[in-house]
Amino acid sequence: MPAVALFGAGRIGAIHAANVAAHSDLTLTYVVDPVAPAAERLAAAHGARVAAAGDVLADADVAGVIIASSTDTHLEHCLNAAAAGKAIFCEKPIDLGLARARAAAPALALARLLLGFNRRFDPQFQALKAQLDSGAVGKLETLNIVSHDPAPPSIDYVKVSGGLFRDMAIHDFDTARWLLGEPPTEVFAAASCLVDPAIGAADDVDTAKILLRTASGKLCLISNSRRSGYGYDQRIEAFGSTGMVRAGNVTESALATWSEAGAAADRFQNFFLDRYADAYRLEMGHFAEVIAGAAPRVGLADALAALELAEAAQASVRSGGPVRL
Amino acid sequence: MPAVALFGAGRIGAIHAANVAAHSDLTLTYVVDPVAPAAERLAAAHGARVAAAGDVLADADVAGVIIASSTDTHLEHCLNAAAAGKAIFCEKPIDLGLARARAAAPALALARLLLGFNRRFDPQFQALKAQLDSGAVGKLETLNIVSHDPAPPSIDYVKVSGGLFRDMAIHDFDTARWLLGEPPTEVFAAASCLVDPAIGAADDVDTAKILLRTASGKLCLISNSRRSGYGYDQRIEAFGSTGMVRAGNVTESALATWSEAGAAADRFQNFFLDRYADAYRLEMGHFAEVIAGAAPRVGLADALAALELAEAAQASVRSGGPVRL
Amino acid sequence: MPAVALFGAGRIGAIHAANVAAHSDLTLTYVVDPVAPAAERLAAAHGARVAAAGDVLADADVAGVIIASSTDTHLEHCLNAAAAGKAIFCEKPIDLGLARARAAAPALALARLLLGFNRRFDPQFQALKAQLDSGAVGKLETLNIVSHDPAPPSIDYVKVSGGLFRDMAIHDFDTARWLLGEPPTEVFAAASCLVDPAIGAADDVDTAKILLRTASGKLCLISNSRRSGYGYDQRIEAFGSTGMVRAGNVTESALATWSEAGAAADRFQNFFLDRYADAYRLEMGHFAEVIAGAAPRVGLADALAALELAEAAQASVRSGGPVRL
Amino acid sequence: MPAVALFGAGRIGAIHAANVAAHSDLTLTYVVDPVAPAAERLAAAHGARVAAAGDVLADADVAGVIIASSTDTHLEHCLNAAAAGKAIFCEKPIDLGLARARAAAPALALARLLLGFNRRFDPQFQALKAQLDSGAVGKLETLNIVSHDPAPPSIDYVKVSGGLFRDMAIHDFDTARWLLGEPPTEVFAAASCLVDPAIGAADDVDTAKILLRTASGKLCLISNSRRSGYGYDQRIEAFGSTGMVRAGNVTESALATWSEAGAAADRFQNFFLDRYADAYRLEMGHFAEVIAGAAPRVGLADALAALELAEAAQASVRSGGPVRL
Repeated sequence: MPAVALFGAGRIGAIHAANVAAHSDLTLTYVVDPVAPAAERLAAAHGARVAAAGDVLADADVAGVIIASSTDTHLEHCLNAAAAGKAIFCEKPIDLGLARARAAAPALALARLLLGFNRRFDPQFQALKAQLDSGAVGKLETLNIVSHDPAPPSIDYVKVSGGLFRDMAIHDFDTARWLLGEPPTEVFAAASCLVDPAIGAADDVDTAKILLRTASGKLCLISNSRRSGYGYDQRIEAFGSTGMVRAGNVTESALATWSEAGAAADRFQNFFLDRYADAYRLEMGHFAEVIAGAAPRVGLADALAALELAEAAQASVRSGGPVRL
Repeated sequence: MPAVALFGAGRIGAIHAANVAAHSDLTLTYVVDPVAPAAERLAAAHGARVAAAGDVLADADVAGVIIASSTDTHLEHCLNAAAAGKAIFCEKPIDLGLARARAAAPALALARLLLGFNRRFDPQFQALKAQLDSGAVGKLETLNIVSHDPAPPSIDYVKVSGGLFRDMAIHDFDTARWLLGEPPTEVFAAASCLVDPAIGAADDVDTAKILLRTASGKLCLISNSRRSGYGYDQRIEAFGSTGMVRAGNVTESALATWSEAGAAADRFQNFFLDRYADAYRLEMGHFAEVIAGAAPRVGLADALAALELAEAAQASVRSGGPVRL
Repeated sequence: MPAVALFGAGRIGAIHAANVAAHSDLTLTYVVDPVAPAAERLAAAHGARVAAAGDVLADADVAGVIIASSTDTHLEHCLNAAAAGKAIFCEKPIDLGLARARAAAPALALARLLLGFNRRFDPQFQALKAQLDSGAVGKLETLNIVSHDPAPPSIDYVKVSGGLFRDMAIHDFDTARWLLGEPPTEVFAAASCLVDPAIGAADDVDTAKILLRTASGKLCLISNSRRSGYGYDQRIEAFGSTGMVRAGNVTESALATWSEAGAAADRFQNFFLDRYADAYRLEMGHFAEVIAGAAPRVGLADALAALELAEAAQASVRSGGPVRL
Repeated sequence: MPAVALFGAGRIGAIHAANVAAHSDLTLTYVVDPVAPAAERLAAAHGARVAAAGDVLADADVAGVIIASSTDTHLEHCLNAAAAGKAIFCEKPIDLGLARARAAAPALALARLLLGFNRRFDPQFQALKAQLDSGAVGKLETLNIVSHDPAPPSIDYVKVSGGLFRDMAIHDFDTARWLLGEPPTEVFAAASCLVDPAIGAADDVDTAKILLRTASGKLCLISNSRRSGYGYDQRIEAFGSTGMVRAGNVTESALATWSEAGAAADRFQNFFLDRYADAYRLEMGHFAEVIAGAAPRVGLADALAALELAEAAQASVRSGGPVRL
């Protein structure tokens, strides 16, 4: 079974470790993290060893590397892993700087690199894509994407996150690209700080509405908020020439209660690790396929393109006008 | 325009009066009610006159009679109106006694008599019937009917109502007959007094579950309660050989609210005059057709058959065993 | 009963005529239309008389005037009716030119003028507004409005309509203003011709996504299409600081069918006269209140503001940049 | 980690084996099945060994036994395992004969026996139970249970299944007992052969409606069919004194599509191994607790009571009258 090493023993690293461990074709052999106790704990839980990055990459038995470390280290780990000939799974975004990422692109051009845009692996969105591809609603014309987090992250996280567009909307940019079938050529974004003044003080925004346009005139709206107050709101509506298809929210249960006050249904799955548990599992399954030789379904070009849209959205907010790509 | 007389100026009489007044092919000319002020008020509201039953029936210009008086007078009014050659719309039930109703049947056999089983005219249930007739779910096999009132009527009403089966379930018996397409040959009912002990003290029940069976083995469940606590619950599920069709409840609005607590939707239309407003209007439209010569879509035979099922259900509760018809 | 005159005997005039006729406090006395047969037919249907505009306005018994004539005549009829001291109900938009409408404003300043922004009277959107006002979802932050027509109008209509923004989106601009509670200060619109090239040839668009922003940073998305392929899609989602409230589409029935293929529910109410039948009735009820002395709930300032947003959206499409107001 | 042995390497045995293997506190050590290749395959898949029943029970290291063999062997395996002092998980029903099961009861009285009524562990039904227990709908009065299979089993299976009531409805009898909170004292069942004449030829029924009544007058309807034509229909509605709570069906996805024809939603999870995957996993988790000393949440008394209801329902169909317990 192919051996896999994990870089980053934090929350998202733990998810990937568990999915590797549960996968019948992968073995987790190494955990790499500067925070030793975290690395130890995660390695112990899955029968892996703690090691230094260099040793891991030097181990010829390691077929694949999962990069789930802090964002500022993604690109360097990618470059090193590529140089060592490993298959790479890299969490989004590939970097916080588009120029830097583009500069690294030639060195990554031949790498087998899978980007962690997990929405592409979500069964709900996969079903929507399949419905679109089947022609059930004709030719796609426009998209309305709603992507609201339940509650804002800590201010400490906000400060190193790269901002709402690079950290959160980047998923939606990739989703839009995936579904539109052609690259957005124009981005306009309006954004506010309505949720928490501390986010504004950190020079970030917490509420945004984004409008994308493609060369053929397809349009896409994205609605983002760092706080919903009612759960993790993750929906896509795709409008085609003969109909509309919607991937709705996933609720905690199919329970409904009727009383004096009306009907009450269960809340949305509230946490991204719950809502996208299947997506995380399935993208790791695809990484096993990549290790075995398959072409990554989402790779370097997608990483750069989503980052470009994120930077364009931020520039649009700063300039107050649309940004052409 | 055909002239119509109304017998009974109570709540349901007022509904029929308004629907006659709003109908482009009918004119309300008389209101008959022993309670003079009620008759005066309703007649005034619609430009009609108060009159005695005999005078109304003697008026050759009166083409149709609506009988919405107290239940114990339905049959006598029907007989008199039939003798006078009037088209008759009679509220359900035609009488509280099956033997009496059967005895009157020969005298009514030639009358143009439309029974007020309004469910047959409800757009929701009509749509369900049309779906069944279209073959969308194959051949009908079984029905599950839920018919729960929002809150029990007054004890005074309960005492003269003829009991839950004759007063309330009789609608569901007619609906079952209409949809099953063949007569039930067996009735089993279990009933309890769970809502209000005063209903039990009046020798009635407030909660019932009924099982019907036809000769070919089709089965029908009916769920009745005098009190839901959450609105007027009026649903039908029809199970066919290739699928299921449901006529769901009608809600006050399409509003939904998501908050910490989950999703909340609006309540069901709570009052039978709201929920069945269209049905009342459409059945009066059909009465106009009957006056103009059309065969009643629901008539004497249906009145007797539903009453027979109601009496059988009550007998089943009393005996503790099923009743064969 | 106050006498009302109707200017315009077309499709929408016929709706207003019927609602006036059915209203217990209004009488329709005159119908004015240059197309004599249409005027005759509608007048006859409601017991009104055909007359010339001047005679109608000179009749002191006429308390109110309904302007449902072609859009290019709205403003002139308004000015004449105002000069004659009549209460005025004017269909949207008040004019196709903002400058002209603004120039007329002083002469209309004292008129009792009700604008036909019927969404404000729709029970669904009223319920949403009430929910927002109740604080059920905290403080309003952003709106997502979907407003897609089932099918495009005729090209002849498109050519005189003033374009998608003045003709169709103007409703949504008014709705946005009504719900946001503060005026939009910036408009960005992207638009395409995806539905019918003939619409593009007529120098119009058929698909648009619009982004509004207010001074306090509230954001609003509007999604417009001249053709849905699946019915009349009229929805609003309002995101507040503690939750979300949605006014959903209204379906033809509560019927659902399950078969091999999955679940099928009934279609949306397809035609604006069906979907907004209650709104048309209720706005005419409000006009009766205005005639009786009440302040119009939506008036001249709203007419100008919505038209300003429509022109700004169109200018945004033309310039490719946002328009500040 | 406690060692567990599996008796029965068929479809349901494979499910239990996988859940044991995935459970962090259990180890699958033995597989017992007279069909050697099936036993070999399943044992190999989970690193267990094939063994004879006697050897397994003689192995002091085996803490628990899972009985998923053919129904006619359940009771004997239970008795042997109990004699050997093992904790027992036994698939439903414990036997096809109530008299035999009752006769065995004393020998099982002290055994730690968990019955495989998996509905009790289903998150949907657990949520419904929790809602009832919370008082959200007041005091429970009646239940409507729908339990329709997607398609009938093979005739060979039907012939050894013990019939619809013992094989299929037995789950619903247990659910009813669990939710009602008091034992049914009367059963009336009507049943037909509408799906497949071969089922009737095998002296079984494929369609049934059952009515239960408790001493305090609570009522329960159960709707059963061997074939839905539209998926696995598993729903419960519980009517309380102040409202209603429903555990609805679980759909394959949250996808919905609108087109000319109306709205289409995804189908129900179609197969019991999908619909109840969580329930199977969670009941095995409870078995780990039972092995560790916890009292079984559903045990011998429940096994006997559900079987008694199944036999009563069958007797009711045969006699045509209700059966008192």
